[in-house]
Amino acid sequence: MFDHFAKEKSDFLRKKDKSRKGRIDKGIIKIISTLNSKNDYYTTSSCAGRIVLLEIKSRKKDECRWIFIKHDEVTFNEINNSLKKYNNNIKNNKTNKKIENQIWLKQQPVILHVACRNLDAARKLLDASRKIFKHSGMIGVTDKKATIEIIGNERIETVIADNNFAADEKYFKNLIKYANKNFVENKSKIGKFFSLIKGL
Amino acid sequence: MFDHFAKEKSDFLRKKDKSRKGRIDKGIIKIISTLNSKNDYYTTSSCAGRIVLLEIKSRKKDECRWIFIKHDEVTFNEINNSLKKYNNNIKNNKTNKKIENQIWLKQQPVILHVACRNLDAARKLLDASRKIFKHSGMIGVTDKKATIEIIGNERIETVIADNNFAADEKYFKNLIKYANKNFVENKSKIGKFFSLIKGL
Repeated sequence: MFDHFAKEKSDFLRKKDKSRKGRIDKGIIKIISTLNSKNDYYTTSSCAGRIVLLEIKSRKKDECRWIFIKHDEVTFNEINNSLKKYNNNIKNNKTNKKIENQIWLKQQPVILHVACRNLDAARKLLDASRKIFKHSGMIGVTDKKATIEIIGNERIETVIADNNFAADEKYFKNLIKYANKNFVENKSKIGKFFSLIKGL
Repeated sequence: MFDHFAKEKSDFLRKKDKSRKGRIDKGIIKIISTLNSKNDYYTTSSCAGRIVLLEIKSRKKDECRWIFIKHDEVTFNEINNSLKKYNNNIKNNKTNKKIENQIWLKQQPVILHVACRNLDAARKLLDASRKIFKHSGMIGVTDKKATIEIIGNERIETVIADNNFAADEKYFKNLIKYANKNFVENKSKIGKFFSLIKGL
């Protein structure tokens, strides 16, 4: 019998990685390869978690500019240097004068999209995921496959400056400390999740 | 034929509301009653969105203390008064001396759990939900029903103080301004979602 899911899987996994980073985060390589080694699953996108600074011009995703991205813990200096460089660019660019200049810090948890052969396979993965990542869910079901979104819990998402205010250095340093703390907790949950899916 | 789903629905809707608030948020009453008027759906829990201050002793949910909760926009004064009262209690209570005193502000979006008669009904609701709330997903599927979690996008989640630091008043005021802005955006999406589900 023609195995439609296996064909789609092999086609998908042969394609070039189209993510901004162009490769899989090292923190979740083991999870990705374990899932992809099983007949019933393949991963379609993934991020192990990241700490970012971005300028939001509008809440629509296509109207923001990345100031800093790292898929790992960060130091105050590296994040602050990006911010300084960004501020200098703004000053030198007269066309940007009217920008609201709203800057957000986000520490985002792991996110994984997994295609599953059928509803039973999806349910098994979903039950395992929700033991650790309680906001995971099935985001699509067709006759051909079901897709699970696995998403972590620990996050920070806050505005740190606009044209009228800015967080002071002490606050910013502490915020980064907590972002790193969350990042480590997120990593530890990824480890626990790996133990769970090995047996699927 | 015995309609198992209809029986479970009427049993569930007859039960007392066990939420902290004890009643449905006014911002989503129309959505709840529209869904519950349809044979294929009933809502099992809901929050229209809220702005909270909480003390986190550990990331486990049962080790936090609520300082302030409001299911609506907030003023700086009402949130700051709660904080002052909380700080006074801490000072007067010697047993609390060793508390890390980690205080977080969270502006959380709408969240709704909806039981669906079957996979087809769930899929219809999921597709509508994800047009507006992209992290919505099916969180459970059994032979008897499927459950959808609908969850909004706009959020702020950040630490504002611990024993070693605190956000200054200007920053805190601006943070509250953005929390209110997000709350309004969340409300407007609830309105759009209502238009979508009427036709389900």
